[in-house]
Amino acid sequence: MKKVAVGVDIGGTNSVYGLVDDQGHILSEGVFPTRNYPDSDLYIEELYIGIQNLLKAAGDEVELVGVGIGAPNGNYYRGTIENAPNLPWKGPISVVEKMKRFFPTLPVILTNDANAAAVGEMIYGGAKGMKDFLVVTLGTGLGSGFVANGQLIYGYTGFAGELGHVTVSHTGRVCGCGRKGCLETYVSATGIKRTIFKLMADSMEESEFRHITFNDLTAEMITKAALNGDPLAIEAYEYTGMLLGHALADAVTITSPEAIFLFGGLAKAGKYIFEPTKKYMEMHMMPVFRNKVKLLPSGIDGKNAAVLGASALVWQSLTGKQM
Amino acid sequence: MKKVAVGVDIGGTNSVYGLVDDQGHILSEGVFPTRNYPDSDLYIEELYIGIQNLLKAAGDEVELVGVGIGAPNGNYYRGTIENAPNLPWKGPISVVEKMKRFFPTLPVILTNDANAAAVGEMIYGGAKGMKDFLVVTLGTGLGSGFVANGQLIYGYTGFAGELGHVTVSHTGRVCGCGRKGCLETYVSATGIKRTIFKLMADSMEESEFRHITFNDLTAEMITKAALNGDPLAIEAYEYTGMLLGHALADAVTITSPEAIFLFGGLAKAGKYIFEPTKKYMEMHMMPVFRNKVKLLPSGIDGKNAAVLGASALVWQSLTGKQM
Repeated sequence: MKKVAVGVDIGGTNSVYGLVDDQGHILSEGVFPTRNYPDSDLYIEELYIGIQNLLKAAGDEVELVGVGIGAPNGNYYRGTIENAPNLPWKGPISVVEKMKRFFPTLPVILTNDANAAAVGEMIYGGAKGMKDFLVVTLGTGLGSGFVANGQLIYGYTGFAGELGHVTVSHTGRVCGCGRKGCLETYVSATGIKRTIFKLMADSMEESEFRHITFNDLTAEMITKAALNGDPLAIEAYEYTGMLLGHALADAVTITSPEAIFLFGGLAKAGKYIFEPTKKYMEMHMMPVFRNKVKLLPSGIDGKNAAVLGASALVWQSLTGKQM
Repeated sequence: MKKVAVGVDIGGTNSVYGLVDDQGHILSEGVFPTRNYPDSDLYIEELYIGIQNLLKAAGDEVELVGVGIGAPNGNYYRGTIENAPNLPWKGPISVVEKMKRFFPTLPVILTNDANAAAVGEMIYGGAKGMKDFLVVTLGTGLGSGFVANGQLIYGYTGFAGELGHVTVSHTGRVCGCGRKGCLETYVSATGIKRTIFKLMADSMEESEFRHITFNDLTAEMITKAALNGDPLAIEAYEYTGMLLGHALADAVTITSPEAIFLFGGLAKAGKYIFEPTKKYMEMHMMPVFRNKVKLLPSGIDGKNAAVLGASALVWQSLTGKQM
């Protein structure tokens, strides 16, 4: 009988769950729209039914060992999702407690999606064997998971690792967190869209984006345009990489990681994001750290990366180490 | 028989060493000028002789259990001091290896002075029982020691925790590390001197500092002037606290500490440094962390704090935890 963990990725649009073995193979998975369940109890019930269906289909071949959940604003200590702006539930939702009603004897572990990505990187991905590294997730926002001494840094509140909210400029772009100039207002799928619009205001350079509305523009379109040589798209990636490089140089002085993994949509732009990020990171790095930090694409990137990351929480917990 | 640890503080001017019990009482101590020993082997020999003299004087009442050493640019993993600009030795010096020749059966542990201060805070000071905190040492430069999950963050290189070298402004003040705008060029004993001279250039406000040369000015004089109501001194502390507050708000997003301890000379300015630091830290803090981080004076501050911190490395190692 094969041991499997359930990985759950609670996203603003969809919730995806899957059965994952300890090598990071997804045996089966399911999906349903998060927004259809504004009542969190009904949401958890739907999730439980979905997981049960996967387990029934797998039959006697698998033994469930635990459930790992990644979610925006997930709090590891309290097992709650707290005021996530893109999820339908208000206030703190006790996700772990609710799931425990269905899985009373198994470990149920929740953390934020970027921390789950970091644990996934450590268990299945490019950070195997590393004790000090950093995963930066470049999605709608910018998330991060810091691992030091082989353990995730959750901090006193359980909300550590918010690299997306270090300040680039106190007079900079308005951020969803209520402040100004946070890194994620520049370095994220949304951030690079804003940069394209700023560049179209600053110059009159021709670009395919002059025909496109802000709401229609996507980071994928910017990546595609960069690959096609669009000068504004390339400049937007250069600017994005510069600000990310500066922020990473500062983060390195604090935790001195062996490697930094870039994960998610913007990382797919390849050299357009990696080259400027590396260049500006090294340029602004304190000399003692220069050329000692690897900047790498995630080893578990792909459409199921979030499910893999969440399932990794279970394998990590079963090794007996604190995360 | 009382167990004692030796704590050694290797400073640019003097080296201080003492016998310390597990409650943080210094039983006896000695001092000698670091600069008189440009040969590192002779230096270590002098240190050994000093320690032996303390042990002889203590007689049969004490049992030595280990040696802890704090030094600028101390590397915990390698047991070396590497290119410390204020010490007389060039290149990496294998301090632990050299000390082990004299104490072959005891633990000999070296780290940088700010990390030693953080361990001291955890063992004897205000961070007892805390698992996530940060110590900022405000001396000639700005050092820091980050503790997460109850362990010091040394990072991949052993040089983690260089908060003094996060960048305030890429076009800012020239730093000894070879870059520009590092936090310690503003927030440190040297930094506040530079700020006084900038303020004297920017305004024509009367100040007692208009009679004093840069080389004669000390941070203690600035603190005393602030306590006496000198407007430039107060403004210099406000500016220093603002930049420290901003940097701490960013650091909090990464490690989410329970408390931040300010240690060393500038911390003695009391409200003149604590109030602006707290004000700007909270003002720029991501809302989820606001009013959740204590800003505290060190619980082990004082003239022997560095010796205490170094000795704490030994007690920490004997508890079996990795630091």
